[in-house]
This record gives sequence, C-alpha cells and structure tokens, in this order.
Amino acid sequence: MLSSIKRFLIGRPLKSNELGEQKLNKTKALAILSSDALSSVAYGPEQILLVLVTVSAAAFWYSIPIAAGVLVLLLALILSYRQIIFAYPHGGGAYVVSKENLGIYPGLIAGGSLLVDYILTVAVSVSAGTDAITSAFPTLHEYTVPIAILFVLFITTLNLRGVTESASILAYPVYLFVLALFIMIGVGVFRVLNGDVPPELHTPVGTPIAGISLFLLLRAFASGSSALTGVEAISNAIPNFKDPAPNNASKTLMAMGTLLAVLFTGIVFLAYQYGVVPKEEVTVVSQIAEHTFGRNFMYFFIQGTTALILILAANTGYSAFPLLAVNLAKDKFIPRMFTARGDRLGYSNGIIILGLFSILLIIVFKGKTEQLIPLYAVGVFIPFTLSQSGMMIKWLREKPAGWIPKFIINTIGAVISFVVSMMFFLTKFSQVWPVLVFLPAIVFLFHRILKHYESVGDQLRLTTCEPIVPIEGNVIIVPVSGITHVVEHSLDYAKSLKPHQIIAVYVPFEREEEEAFERKWESWQPDVRLVTLHSPYRSVIQPLTKFIDTVQRKAAESNYQVTVIIPQFIPKKGWHNILHNQSSLFIRARLLYSRNLIVTTVPYHLKK
Amino acid sequence: MLSSIKRFLIGRPLKSNELGEQKLNKTKALAILSSDALSSVAYGPEQILLVLVTVSAAAFWYSIPIAAGVLVLLLALILSYRQIIFAYPHGGGAYVVSKENLGIYPGLIAGGSLLVDYILTVAVSVSAGTDAITSAFPTLHEYTVPIAILFVLFITTLNLRGVTESASILAYPVYLFVLALFIMIGVGVFRVLNGDVPPELHTPVGTPIAGISLFLLLRAFASGSSALTGVEAISNAIPNFKDPAPNNASKTLMAMGTLLAVLFTGIVFLAYQYGVVPKEEVTVVSQIAEHTFGRNFMYFFIQGTTALILILAANTGYSAFPLLAVNLAKDKFIPRMFTARGDRLGYSNGIIILGLFSILLIIVFKGKTEQLIPLYAVGVFIPFTLSQSGMMIKWLREKPAGWIPKFIINTIGAVISFVVSMMFFLTKFSQVWPVLVFLPAIVFLFHRILKHYESVGDQLRLTTCEPIVPIEGNVIIVPVSGITHVVEHSLDYAKSLKPHQIIAVYVPFEREEEEAFERKWESWQPDVRLVTLHSPYRSVIQPLTKFIDTVQRKAAESNYQVTVIIPQFIPKKGWHNILHNQSSLFIRARLLYSRNLIVTTVPYHLKK
Repeated sequence: MLSSIKRFLIGRPLKSNELGEQKLNKTKALAILSSDALSSVAYGPEQILLVLVTVSAAAFWYSIPIAAGVLVLLLALILSYRQIIFAYPHGGGAYVVSKENLGIYPGLIAGGSLLVDYILTVAVSVSAGTDAITSAFPTLHEYTVPIAILFVLFITTLNLRGVTESASILAYPVYLFVLALFIMIGVGVFRVLNGDVPPELHTPVGTPIAGISLFLLLRAFASGSSALTGVEAISNAIPNFKDPAPNNASKTLMAMGTLLAVLFTGIVFLAYQYGVVPKEEVTVVSQIAEHTFGRNFMYFFIQGTTALILILAANTGYSAFPLLAVNLAKDKFIPRMFTARGDRLGYSNGIIILGLFSILLIIVFKGKTEQLIPLYAVGVFIPFTLSQSGMMIKWLREKPAGWIPKFIINTIGAVISFVVSMMFFLTKFSQVWPVLVFLPAIVFLFHRILKHYESVGDQLRLTTCEPIVPIEGNVIIVPVSGITHVVEHSLDYAKSLKPHQIIAVYVPFEREEEEAFERKWESWQPDVRLVTLHSPYRSVIQPLTKFIDTVQRKAAESNYQVTVIIPQFIPKKGWHNILHNQSSLFIRARLLYSRNLIVTTVPYHLKK
Repeated sequence: MLSSIKRFLIGRPLKSNELGEQKLNKTKALAILSSDALSSVAYGPEQILLVLVTVSAAAFWYSIPIAAGVLVLLLALILSYRQIIFAYPHGGGAYVVSKENLGIYPGLIAGGSLLVDYILTVAVSVSAGTDAITSAFPTLHEYTVPIAILFVLFITTLNLRGVTESASILAYPVYLFVLALFIMIGVGVFRVLNGDVPPELHTPVGTPIAGISLFLLLRAFASGSSALTGVEAISNAIPNFKDPAPNNASKTLMAMGTLLAVLFTGIVFLAYQYGVVPKEEVTVVSQIAEHTFGRNFMYFFIQGTTALILILAANTGYSAFPLLAVNLAKDKFIPRMFTARGDRLGYSNGIIILGLFSILLIIVFKGKTEQLIPLYAVGVFIPFTLSQSGMMIKWLREKPAGWIPKFIINTIGAVISFVVSMMFFLTKFSQVWPVLVFLPAIVFLFHRILKHYESVGDQLRLTTCEPIVPIEGNVIIVPVSGITHVVEHSLDYAKSLKPHQIIAVYVPFEREEEEAFERKWESWQPDVRLVTLHSPYRSVIQPLTKFIDTVQRKAAESNYQVTVIIPQFIPKKGWHNILHNQSSLFIRARLLYSRNLIVTTVPYHLKK
C-alpha cells in the first residue's frame, strides 16, 4: 500500500545507469537554478528605497548610483563564480573553494552557512509567495501556514521525482516571470523616453540632500545587495548539468547574470522615474506595473508570475542543498545518509531533510518569515566573502598564466562582499546575531561528527585491532513466559544448534507461581534446565540481566559465547502489537545495547 | 539518568508484598474518592437555577422541590451502591454488576461509558479549576491550556507515587472545602432563622408561575442531578481500601452521601432565600458567600478552596479509572498492560493513559471543556441505570432473605436514573449525541480485542495445535557490508554453531565493486561461500529477501532451518546511531515480520 502511494507520488524507481537522463540542459538549469536570484529582484530595489525613505523621498535619486554599485558587485560575483566553476568542476561551490584554499574551518563556515541558508531560502520564499496569494484572496488568510506547508510538500515531491522532471514543470513560470518583467520594463522605458512620464515625479540625480550619510548609503547598498542572494547556487549544482558540465554551467551563470542585471536596473530605473514610494501594502513592482499599464491584464499577469516565482525560488534550494550535503557527507562532516541516491537517483535524504526543516521554520514563525530575510542575506554574504578570498589565495599560490586580472576580480568581489556582510552586522545586528550562535555550533557539530566517523573507521579496520578471541562453545539462555508453542519452537531451535548448555529462565512475580511452574516444566521439558528468578519488584529485565551476567562471567572462563534466544510471537496484523506487552522487544534492546551478548529472535507467526 | 529522574518524581520501587501499606483508611479514602462528587455541589444547584431562570426569577421556588427530588435520587443511589459494594467486594462497580446480571454487552456499555467518563472528569474538572484561577489572575489567562496541562501532570505524578501518598496530600484541600462550605451554610442558615434576610428576596414556595411545564421541571431536575456524578467512584475502588474493605467502603460511601446531601441542600436553600440569580461572571456559590460574609477573608477562603477542589475532583478519576481498567483487562476487553502494577504498586499504565487522554482533550478543546459537561453527566447516568437494573435482576433471581426492600431501592434508583438519562437526550441532544457514536464504537473495539486475545490463546496452547516440524539442520546467511571486524566477529560466531552451510551475501550497487569485493573475500575468508547480488535499484532488502526465499525453499525440503545473522556495530553513545544508516535494524524488522526466519543480531560494541 505505502509503496504504491510512493510510486504514484514520485514515479517508478530508476536504475543507477539511467543517471545520465537525469541531467539538465541549459534552458532548464537556468530556470530552476536562477529562480532564487531572479525572484529577489521582486524585493531588492524596494529594500534600497526603504532605507532612503528614512531621509526623504527626494533622496531617491541615490538609488541610481547604489544600483550601479550593486551591478559592480554582481559583475564581480558572476565573474568570480565563473572562475570557481572551472576551477572546481565537481561542484560544492563556496564550501570546496574555502576548504581547499583557506582550510577546514573556513570551509565549514561557508558550508554550514549555505546549508542553513538554503533552508531559510525555502521557508522565506514559500512564505512570501503564500503571502502574495493570501493578500489576493483574504478569505485564505487564516490558512497561510497550511497553504505554505502544502507548497513545500509539493516542491519536495516534485524534487523527489527527479531534477529533470521538476525542471520541466518549473521552467514555465520562471520564463513567464522574466517575460512579464521584460515587457513591463520595455514599455516603461519607452514611455520614459517618449516623455510620457512627468519629470517632476523625481528629483534629478545629483540634487544635494540634507541628512544623507555614507553610513546610510552603505546600509542602502547592503539592503539592495540582498537581490544577489542565489547567484552561488549554480556553482554548487554543477554535477546536475549535462556534459560538458562546467561549460554549460558557466554559460548558464552568464545568462543568469545578464537577466538579473537587466531586470534589477530596469526596476530601479523605473521606480526612480515614476517616483515610487515604498508602501506597506503595495510592493514597488506592483506600483511600477500599475503606473505602466493601469490595472489591466498585464498588471495581474505580473502580479501572478511574481507570486509564482517567489514560491519557485524555493526550488533553487532543492537543487543546491542536496549537492552541498553530498560534499559535506563525503568529507564525513554530516551523516553518511546524505550520499545515498533515492529511487529516482536524486539525493532524496537531502531533499526530505530540507523540506522538513523549512516546514519546521514556517510553523515556528507562523508563516511570518520576513524577519529571517537579513539572517538569510548575511548567511549568503559570508560564504561569498570566503569563496572569493579562497580564490585570491589560489591565484596567489598557483600563479597560472594571466592570473592577475582574475586575482583583481576576486579581490574586488571579496572586499565588496565583506563590506556588505559587515553592514548587515552593523545595521541589523538585532536580526542577524543568531548567525554568531549557530555558525560556531554547526561547525562544532561537523567537527564532532567527523571525529566519530574516524574513530569508528579505526575500530572496524582489520589491520589495526587485536585478534578476536576464538569461540570454543555456546551457552544458550531462553527466557520463557509460559508453556506455549512459542517457547516450544524456540527450545527446538536451541537444541538444533547443539550448544554446550541450554538454560530456560522464568521470572515469576509471586512465590506461588514459582513452584507450580517448576512442576509443570519438569514434566514438559525434563531435559532442559529451568532457572526461576523470583522478582519482588515486578521487573523482568533486572533479574534477567543479573543472571545473564553471572552466566557470562563463567562462560568467558572457557571462551564460551552466550546467546540469548528470545521467543516472540508475531500477530497477523500490525495493530495487534499494541495488545501485547512488547517485553521481548524491550529485553532484546536492553541486552543488545548494554551487554556483549548475541541475541536471537525466534518468531512464531500467528496464522489468524 | 532517566531512571534517577523517575526515582525523584515517583520514589523508590516497592516490593509486591508492600501492597498492604498502599491501602487507604476511611478518612483518606473519603477525601480522594469523594472529591469529584463533593466538587459538583459547586455547580449542581446553579444548573437548576439556570433552567428555571428561562421562565422567570419568580420560578426559583421550584428549586426546593427539585432539590428534594435530587436528594431522593441521591438516597437511592447511595443505598443501591452500598448494596453493590457488599455484593461485589472486589470492585468494578457498574461494569461488574451489569456484566454479571444483564450480560456482556450491558456490562461493556457501563464499563466503556465509565472509562470515557473518568477521562472527561479529569479534563473538565482541571479546566474548571484552572478557569477559576485565571479569572482571579487575568494575566495568566492566555496560559490556561499550559497551566491545565501542568495540573494534570502534577496529579498524574502524585498518583504514580501511589494512592496513599496522593491521599495524604490531597485530603487537606477536600476537608478545607467541606469546612468552608459548612461554615457558610451554618452562618447563612443562622441569619435566615434570625430574620436577617429580608423575605421579599424570594417568592414563597407554592406561588403559581405561568409558563412552568413538567418538561421544564424535569429538565431542571436532570441538570441538578449532574451534582451526583462521582458517587459511583467508591464502588469501583474497593480494592484500595484497608481491610475489611467492603465495610470501610460502605461507611465511606454513607459519609460521602451525608456530606453531599447537607452541602447540596444548604446551597439550594440559601440560594433560594437570598434570591440569587445565576450570572455569567459570578458563580452561585460565590454570590452566596458574598451575601453571607461580604468580601472578607471567608469569602476568599471559600473561593480558593472551591478552585482547589475543582482541580482535585480529577483525582477521583485517577483512583477509579485504573481499577476499572484492571477489571476490563482481566476480562481481556482492553490491553493486558492495564493489569501490570508499576514501581509503586499502582496500576501505572492506567494512570498514565488517563493523564494522556485528558491532556489531549484539554488541548483539543483549548481548555474550554464546559461543553463536555452534559456528555459527562449522561456518561454517568447510563451506568447508574444499568447497574441498578442489574441489581434488580440479581434480587429477583437470587431472592435472598429480605430482598424486597432492596429490590424496591434499586427499582427507584433505576427508574430515576433512566429518566435523568432520557432527559439529557431529550433536552441536550446537540451536546450528548456523541455518546451514541462512541459507545457502540468502544463496545465494538472491546469485542474485537477479546476475539484477538482468544484467538492468540488458542494458537499458543500446546494441546490444540499441530506438532512442530523437527529441525534437522541449520543454514546460516550472513549479509555483509564490507571486510571489517564486525563481519569477522559474526562469521566466527556462525562457524561456532557448526551449521550445515554458511553463506555470506554482499549487495553491491555498482558492477565494478562486485568483482573487487569477490577477490578480496577470496583471500580473506576462502572457506566461506560468498554470494554477490548486484542491485541496480540501490535497494539492499529486495535482492536479499529474494535470495533468502530461494535458500529457504531449498532448506525446507530437508527440514533445515534458515537463520540470518546480522552483524551490527553499536556505537558508544546513543546519539551516534543517527550517523549510521540503520540498515541492520531495517533488515531485521523486514525479515522477522514478513518471513518465517530466525534472526540473530551479533553486536560489535565500539569502545570509543
């Protein structure tokens, strides 16, 4: 039953050698890997205006030079990540770059912040998209959280079906969104050039404004840079591309950079020309659309595709998180299960964990995840800074032909990213301080996990350990609860192993039971030694383990191995189990984990 | 660690023969078993007035004859339950009486409604008490649910410590409450007799009132009868009394009846004399207290003890539920675990389940459990009716000396209880209909559980089953995941059992691994046959079970038993387990439950 539901949801299992068919071409890759970055143009420009408006609406002309700054940063990041793609064609992005060039700990900081960041991406973008929908249909408002969870489940399922299939479905909304914004920007710019937009709507660039400080401008710049989150995703997900993967990834990255630059510039420019003032209830993009088209079809088309892309931005997280997790798991910093491919050849454990954690965040923050945006932005700029610094070191160390321009690009990227990260700490400390708690915690955890795996490996390796003590004979203990077929079956099995000795153990709670049972046993199994252990505290485990310890001590003297055979009857239907005290399960778990004992379960299947 | 927390909360385990010290004397028994019944005088009289006020305040004089009716019912119930105590001195109350005299199904209906009822008692009374507290301290209002849950956890823990200990703590508030009400009634009656209360506050008894109907009066009567819930508790809990248990129980019952009668009559009388009109925000008892004392110390004393006793009324449920559950479990209608005594000799499973279910109710109804009161009242009057009818049948059948007055008492009780039950259905159908759904459902469940236990018993009994096929030899299969100490240890053990054959099974996901592993194996364990099963779908279980099926089919031909030995390494700390794929656990569970296979786990304990 369960397995057919699974089949229906995620499709038939794929053979390992069908992996090639699960690779992405550039069009699809652009759609699913850039949805996060592209969607951020829906709120990035607004963030700039929100800082400037604290001075006055006249200061809005500063958005033009600030946008230019953001474009420079974007250019530096794109060129830099392009270099990373070719230098590290197996993916892993900031984590691998930082680890290889700066050392383990910077690598873990980059990897840890990106892992957390992708979870935040999913939670934040799905909540934002759900908000857009529930604002349009206010009756749905009280169901925000369940709707957001449904979206996460939907995207998770889609990703479990495999990356190509999710890409085929998710490519349409992304391109529709790009198309819609292109039309809007085209029409808007045409109207501006045509003189349809009255120039008194905006102050000319260069007007001196009282109260503007460098600090404020840097703050506005940092806020605007949040539109650049997501540009690192492609460098993490290179293995998902069709061969030649690095070339395809690099081309996709350039295409994404171009789209991002055009959309970002266009929106900032139109917002400035129209003199848009950020409002609580209406987004900047929505105001621009209304200015450009009025409230006609195009307006709703833009609103609809924006809501969609906000939700689909989550998908970038689903592409990048599992691959980053594979890299961390291969280095033994996180549990090994993240390296296992699921039925559809995706790294399903990563996909599922990502979905679960984002649902958790959505529930904890009751769907109001806007407060997490600064946390999320700083979590991106820390790895940005680290990866660019790593590349700087790499060029300095290796000095390949023509390394100087590459070094300069990475240095510019590193400096700007560092400044942006610092601005977040300086201006939004109350929102980003958790990073300072959870990053060290995550790195510590990574470290502990690695230590554990290393110690286990050492202990299991044949070469390094002491030789095993040979087993000279066997002693079998059978805890019995009555005179039944279940016990009979277990005793038969024990006898067939021809051990040195079989001891049946009975634990009565009352003295009277004891003798009666011994008498019955004598006539039923005269050849099996019975030991009764009266238990005044009504615990079976305690007297049993005490007895086993004694037997084991004696057995060890002659290198005998002690095995406990547990008779267990198995009801026909699963729910019947709650009707029976699961003593055999408890006994097994206690013995196996606390004592060096071999535990055998002899099942007796009930037929009805 | 866990066990020392447990020790701190509930105390050291007790030996089975210390049971005698866990019995109650009459004073303590009265306190814990009557808290439910006594607490209901805090709302019973109010229920009568709430019905009468729908006609007019002038109709309040009818509360006097109605209270007389309630007293008659109380007398019938007390006398009747006194007879039940002596006739069924081992407890079980309505369930046992109905089962023995009316048949299984009436017994199950009585037992089922009481089980549910005790859960309702706990939820309703704790919520009511919490309400009283949060009304006094409005800042706590938003924490009503967590506070109520804390109270439930507190009472549950207290009961897990054992019945005498909880009685010692809970006796004080009960007697303080009784004392407080006695003082209030005494002072109030004195003032009335003294002529301090102006007679124009109330209409004289017998004043004709327009709009009064028999139906309305019966409804008021039924509502007032809700003050009688809880009088059955003593008959369920006889085994908790010190010897001679039936005598002590009967005396306690009479004392409770007397207290209940005095308090109920006193409150109705004063309410009538003062002309108290029920109000949304102020309870009737609170109004009487204010009339009698003004807002001085005595007023707050009465309010405080009332809140306390409302919470402690829950404790009656904790005394009666586990004992009723034992009776049902002994008859195999509910899981056997309810018959097991915990560390402190209480039936701890019953106590814990009761706590869990009431917490669930509190959460589901967000602490607003008043709506459950009618459900709860009807759930008491159904077993009242059944048990009294049962006693009628008993007298008719046995006809002992002097049976006729006994028969008459039970007949009166049965008729009145039946009328009250019907009144609930007629007048509050919208609130009590769930009884008609869940009672049949519970009875059906009881029936299914019994059938299951009977079928299991039949299958396990030695006399009735076919003889077991003798085991002629053993075939051992060892799934291996690599060449490690864990595997080495398991193979050594397998060899020590000297089976007919040992087969090691390896499941590679890639073709390349396959050959490499076979070569390594050949040089490591040349005497153990290795089978590799390539798994293109990356599942270990599927090829393994298929292989085992084949082996098993062959083995069955010569009566060989197949055992699967699973090597399992056990990390030093529990949390380490999440770092390792628990394949061995999954394999074990799948094999044990789906195939007739013996599964042996050979642990390899890591040392660090």
